[in-house]
Amino acid sequence: MAVDAAGLEILREEQCLSLLEGTSLGRIAVTVGAVPAIFPINYRLIDGRILFRTGDGTKLHQASDHAVVAFEVDEVDPVTHAGWSVLVVGVAKEVREAHADAGLDTIPRPWAPGERDHIIAITPELVSGRRVADAG
Amino acid sequence: MAVDAAGLEILREEQCLSLLEGTSLGRIAVTVGAVPAIFPINYRLIDGRILFRTGDGTKLHQASDHAVVAFEVDEVDPVTHAGWSVLVVGVAKEVREAHADAGLDTIPRPWAPGERDHIIAITPELVSGRRVADAG
Repeated sequence: MAVDAAGLEILREEQCLSLLEGTSLGRIAVTVGAVPAIFPINYRLIDGRILFRTGDGTKLHQASDHAVVAFEVDEVDPVTHAGWSVLVVGVAKEVREAHADAGLDTIPRPWAPGERDHIIAITPELVSGRRVADAG
Repeated sequence: MAVDAAGLEILREEQCLSLLEGTSLGRIAVTVGAVPAIFPINYRLIDGRILFRTGDGTKLHQASDHAVVAFEVDEVDPVTHAGWSVLVVGVAKEVREAHADAGLDTIPRPWAPGERDHIIAITPELVSGRRVADAG
């Protein structure tokens, strides 16, 4: 088991992808103007990309197209602090191909519902993950 | 009830602070080098500041001292998508006063355990929150 400087187990990329595949709620960090922000998003991992919907005119839509973003998914026990966290860094871009393609119809509705919505894809450049057995 | 452009209920600052007070797991966005990152943190809200511990020599410790950070707490139902999200933006600084002061002893251990740890305080500059009744 590989551990990092802080003593956390380092997850392999395939473990990270498998955890990303099994979860549907994550958080994305973007910059709105010069101010950092984090939003919860419902997503799906399809063909190696993280796909999510965002409402038209939302801050998230404006901030996430053509931006380098961080995306994180975790599962942490509030009492024992045991759990894992997977971090993805990549470029987010709006998906403009027909939504019926590539299973895009199965992407959950955006957390912030809107009249019209847009599909954003994050193409991972860096994928990393850590697991804590029990930080008690 | 005030709503934003995406139709989400806008939470008042006192509602946001009360939600922050009642939760202990959040996520912080920082920049490590030029790369954005998100880490889960166990925190406490004490005297209006968000306090958390981080291990010595961790990326989070290096990236969060004297940095403008985003900090987010949420509770989202994975099925109905109902829930809330509170976002704080502020300057993070290491707390150097004796740890026994101001209840700092009650701050949860860091998610990433380490030999020595540091206490970081985020002083909120912006606090905002949204609630979704049921985005189903």
